[in-house]
Amino acid sequence: MTAPLRRRGRRPGSTDTKAEILTAARNEFAAFGFDGATIRGIARAAAVDPALVHHYFGNKQKIFVAALELPLDPSEMVPKLMAPGVAGLGDRLIRFLLSVLDTPDGEARVLAVLRSAVTNANFAALMRGYLLESVIVPNLTKLGVSEPARRAALLFSQVGGVILARYVLQAEPLASASVDNVARWVAPTLQRYLTADLD
Amino acid sequence: MTAPLRRRGRRPGSTDTKAEILTAARNEFAAFGFDGATIRGIARAAAVDPALVHHYFGNKQKIFVAALELPLDPSEMVPKLMAPGVAGLGDRLIRFLLSVLDTPDGEARVLAVLRSAVTNANFAALMRGYLLESVIVPNLTKLGVSEPARRAALLFSQVGGVILARYVLQAEPLASASVDNVARWVAPTLQRYLTADLD
Repeated sequence: MTAPLRRRGRRPGSTDTKAEILTAARNEFAAFGFDGATIRGIARAAAVDPALVHHYFGNKQKIFVAALELPLDPSEMVPKLMAPGVAGLGDRLIRFLLSVLDTPDGEARVLAVLRSAVTNANFAALMRGYLLESVIVPNLTKLGVSEPARRAALLFSQVGGVILARYVLQAEPLASASVDNVARWVAPTLQRYLTADLD
Repeated sequence: MTAPLRRRGRRPGSTDTKAEILTAARNEFAAFGFDGATIRGIARAAAVDPALVHHYFGNKQKIFVAALELPLDPSEMVPKLMAPGVAGLGDRLIRFLLSVLDTPDGEARVLAVLRSAVTNANFAALMRGYLLESVIVPNLTKLGVSEPARRAALLFSQVGGVILARYVLQAEPLASASVDNVARWVAPTLQRYLTADLD
């Protein structure tokens, strides 16, 4: 990696610089959405060289994950979950999500994202642009399923609803059911949304 | 109806008195939950006679609906939707909910409830106690379905998720799909949660 250029006097690599880049990134994503925001724009807002942003965070996906403190990188996890093919994908998806949400840190971060989405329409649009349009729909398209946008929206509706019912409303027996049980109840719904003829 | 007794000097029936009862009701429900709150307690907190609370609002269900500004009274609607029996109930349920949510006032009120639930654990517990434990589970029990609590939690997970995906995230094509289309996509899920052997 080339030595990053900096425009101000602070020591490169300081926690402050990273924090400033993340603050700039949150503002840029909020203002322009995931597709509209650029590493160049984030760097300009943080008054650093774009090479430094690349150096610290890699690509735009990874800045987004860091800036929004997501518990995982969907752009890495979604392709991994889809790699074995569409058969059994509903089951793999719900098991993976519960394994993240059933940790205190994962639950706290997902609920923070949900709170922001429900209270802030710009944030909701940002998450939609990122999660659905930039990650899930393109990956479903690669998988060769028909009507990927419709399937992605329906998948989200059941997964988002499980988060609401299990972690927010804490409705029993869903709230304290094992991962195996939730998967048995919910995976057939997800699989139908992935592969069934919905018309 | 008997003439209500009042303990203070204000004119009975004034908007102020009703507003005070509703404020007292919100506090009582927040402190004691739906089951724990009483008309007597609400009346005491509002410094009016319990008969006045009954006079204005009828029963505890109706005070709850008025205090939380719900767009409809679930204790009336749920039995109506269930009256024709469990066959077709998933379809009736989603069509009815969309008919409420597809009005500006209905959408605003449901999203206000969702925002409160996601940002306030006490409110979430209150809604769970009311909606699931006091309305949906007893009505499913009357319908004779097995494991009514599990079915109610799963129904909520799909219905709540449709609200998230269609009205909060506004994920297309779900956000602008017709009621007929959403029902065709989602009602089979609800029906499975109502009647299928989930084990």
